[in-house]
Amino acid sequence: YEYDRPLMKTQVPGPRSKELTKQMGQIQNNTAINFFCNYEESRGNFLVDVDGNRMLDVYTQIASIPIGYNHPALLKVVSDPNNASAFVNRPALGILPPESFVNKLTEGLLTVAPKGLNRVQNMACGSCSNENAFKAMFIWYRNKERGTSIPSDADLSSCMINQTPGCPELSILSFSGAFHGRTMGCLATTHSKPIHKLDVPSFDWPIAPFPRLQYPLDEHVRENAQEEARCLEETEDLIVKWRHKGMPVAGVVIEPIQAEGGDNHASAAFFISLRKIASKHGCAFHVDEVQTGGGATGRFWAHEHWGAEDPADIVSFSKKLLTGGFFYRDEMETDKPYRIFNTWMGDPSKNLLLAEVLNVIRQENLLAEVTRTGKALLGGLYELQAKYPNLLSRARGQGTFCAIDICKASVRDKLILQARDNGVILGGCGDLSIRFRPALIFKEHHVHMFLNVFSDLLAAH
Amino acid sequence: YEYDRPLMKTQVPGPRSKELTKQMGQIQNNTAINFFCNYEESRGNFLVDVDGNRMLDVYTQIASIPIGYNHPALLKVVSDPNNASAFVNRPALGILPPESFVNKLTEGLLTVAPKGLNRVQNMACGSCSNENAFKAMFIWYRNKERGTSIPSDADLSSCMINQTPGCPELSILSFSGAFHGRTMGCLATTHSKPIHKLDVPSFDWPIAPFPRLQYPLDEHVRENAQEEARCLEETEDLIVKWRHKGMPVAGVVIEPIQAEGGDNHASAAFFISLRKIASKHGCAFHVDEVQTGGGATGRFWAHEHWGAEDPADIVSFSKKLLTGGFFYRDEMETDKPYRIFNTWMGDPSKNLLLAEVLNVIRQENLLAEVTRTGKALLGGLYELQAKYPNLLSRARGQGTFCAIDICKASVRDKLILQARDNGVILGGCGDLSIRFRPALIFKEHHVHMFLNVFSDLLAAH
Ligand code: FES
Repeated sequence: YEYDRPLMKTQVPGPRSKELTKQMGQIQNNTAINFFCNYEESRGNFLVDVDGNRMLDVYTQIASIPIGYNHPALLKVVSDPNNASAFVNRPALGILPPESFVNKLTEGLLTVAPKGLNRVQNMACGSCSNENAFKAMFIWYRNKERGTSIPSDADLSSCMINQTPGCPELSILSFSGAFHGRTMGCLATTHSKPIHKLDVPSFDWPIAPFPRLQYPLDEHVRENAQEEARCLEETEDLIVKWRHKGMPVAGVVIEPIQAEGGDNHASAAFFISLRKIASKHGCAFHVDEVQTGGGATGRFWAHEHWGAEDPADIVSFSKKLLTGGFFYRDEMETDKPYRIFNTWMGDPSKNLLLAEVLNVIRQENLLAEVTRTGKALLGGLYELQAKYPNLLSRARGQGTFCAIDICKASVRDKLILQARDNGVILGGCGDLSIRFRPALIFKEHHVHMFLNVFSDLLAAH
Repeated sequence: YEYDRPLMKTQVPGPRSKELTKQMGQIQNNTAINFFCNYEESRGNFLVDVDGNRMLDVYTQIASIPIGYNHPALLKVVSDPNNASAFVNRPALGILPPESFVNKLTEGLLTVAPKGLNRVQNMACGSCSNENAFKAMFIWYRNKERGTSIPSDADLSSCMINQTPGCPELSILSFSGAFHGRTMGCLATTHSKPIHKLDVPSFDWPIAPFPRLQYPLDEHVRENAQEEARCLEETEDLIVKWRHKGMPVAGVVIEPIQAEGGDNHASAAFFISLRKIASKHGCAFHVDEVQTGGGATGRFWAHEHWGAEDPADIVSFSKKLLTGGFFYRDEMETDKPYRIFNTWMGDPSKNLLLAEVLNVIRQENLLAEVTRTGKALLGGLYELQAKYPNLLSRARGQGTFCAIDICKASVRDKLILQARDNGVILGGCGDLSIRFRPALIFKEHHVHMFLNVFSDLLAAH
């Protein structure tokens, strides 16, 4: 059902996109708009815009489209009259769930539960998933400190006015270059770009260095191990330091691959050691898989590549999973109602679509496909960087979750625009990187379509 | 298409609900679950549960169902094949909006724009709407302080590590008893119940007293005016005090009727004076209409009852509007991309449904209907409280957005359960109140259905 190639009619944005963008400027900030889309006409890996341009999409709505546009299996879910009620009657899931919801969780999210995490809390987006994961860690930590889940009278009265001990001086340790969302709790752990954080009050929480590795990883094992050891040591120092400051670290949050921050990888050994350090100091360990989860690394979760028996206490997700939420260990469960709560607590219509996405992933064996496609993609990037060493460097990736650095930000930005005018949608991340975030149905011939366009642009540079 | 009355087969929760609740306990915290629902069989004002009980719903999923269950107009939106794409291709709205989105905003949200607020930012739920409204106020305030929207080098570098001046010491002033959401920024302005806030770190932001009025308002004009004057004075003192503390108030946030906190009303004069005090001290004025917006007070926005020419700088919404977001004045616009931003920025499929909800509200003249129904409801409550002065007090409301206090929390909680077993779903709020939150299609005969059940219970007490 898919298109076989890009088809360009105008530069992007074309006249119709420009007109609509102008109109949007009358209503809200329009400065981030790339172009307007014709989603009805988009298919599989190809995004069609309002000027009739058809582009190979290697960015997929900031990595949030799991199996391409208008997948027939998903269209069938929506057209099934039995499902209509789920789309028009959005319940308050925490108090009045639909009959089918237990089954939807059991046959859906729980089939992809990370090792050791038997429980899952549904949420609606990456930010509320992380905010509530943080809250779960704070609650767990305070119950541990108190030795009971029963709050004191001082806890109960002081929390109502934002004061200690009820609103405790606790922190979440995050990493330089991290991105965990933009609501105020999440934002205090986000350190990607100034524009994300500027002018918003924050918490004085510890920020550890994320390893800055050399690529390919297997050619720099010794230096990289040293760099990771340095970061681990500093992390442990910060945990101790913040405890002495009177603001203990309740949880450590980290992405298995830092995405917005520039596609920064670290070794399995690093993450496993970090998890041990967190446990040693009584901190919960939260792996944020909002961007990495859902199969793009060739495993359903990026942390599966660590091969750890006990990878995390909490794993949060959203984007490709269409809903949000977090998996958690039994010990992280709250014992009282209304602590982890909001009106909607997710949206069952998204769980319906997710169940179908998971079926397609299994039926079409998409994780193995991603691994194969990813090899072709990374291989192609290695070749190009060997050919253009002054332009390209640091090709890296897992599955199709790949990136490459360009010599200068201005060159990077120009290449992205040129690629788009030639029918390929790419995204940037960090200061110098292009990130690749295709859907799970991106195949080797799509890789070659991209490589052809990209190498022509590099040759002409 | 609606049912004509409740029909009860078991106590609630019935055996099937109990079984499912037990199963849910294996997956996540199940302690807030009331019962499981059969949304397919629910119609209009009647919610059907999995044990075949059919109940008149006067709580509507925490006030989030605008025009009842399975409204034919909404079912039509979902079954229209032209809309399927909107349900399966969720875009990153901030960068790649669909062609129809400008129209959807113009024909949808903008037709209900509050006075003076020409711009609207779409978001996904009440929490991200308020979090981003807060961010917009912080950004606006800092630009004013700097005299330019261009950040200094110190701003840019310090914000990356959560430090001043980039992450400034600014505050949002909120009110005792307020509820603005549960993500960490929102939660710092929420002061409804300890369980909402306990164990979560917070900001040292000012909390002003919300007037504690006597009802009916028109019989206590003088005392209420005194109480409001006291609260206004204290609010102004707090604004000054926090400025001297070095943590100026960037914005004041308030609900037109405090909902979760116990359905606390204040006069139009109070809100208009408060808005003036905010302006006088250079603070933005944010009216949170997440629960009050959408018509339940008999006006589309509760703040319309103030009759103010210039009611607010920001008005946030969600719940009955199905999507989230906030309206704002031109001056509150950010000048740069990616400041108010996240992956999804809402969900166009919700805007589709909202447009239809707004059509139904107009076609069926539902705001006038709500006013009529609300009079019958409040009249009935007045009668009951005259008859049972030891049990009931403080009947109050605007439109169908009504509440009444019960002498003791335990009696309140018992009455809610008894009403449910007799086919009427009610919700509590605050310490002693029952709140009424029917859909906009709740008619006078539904009021009488409720009153019959309720007065029988009171008589038997
Ligand atoms: S914060 Fe996640 S949907 Fe609003």
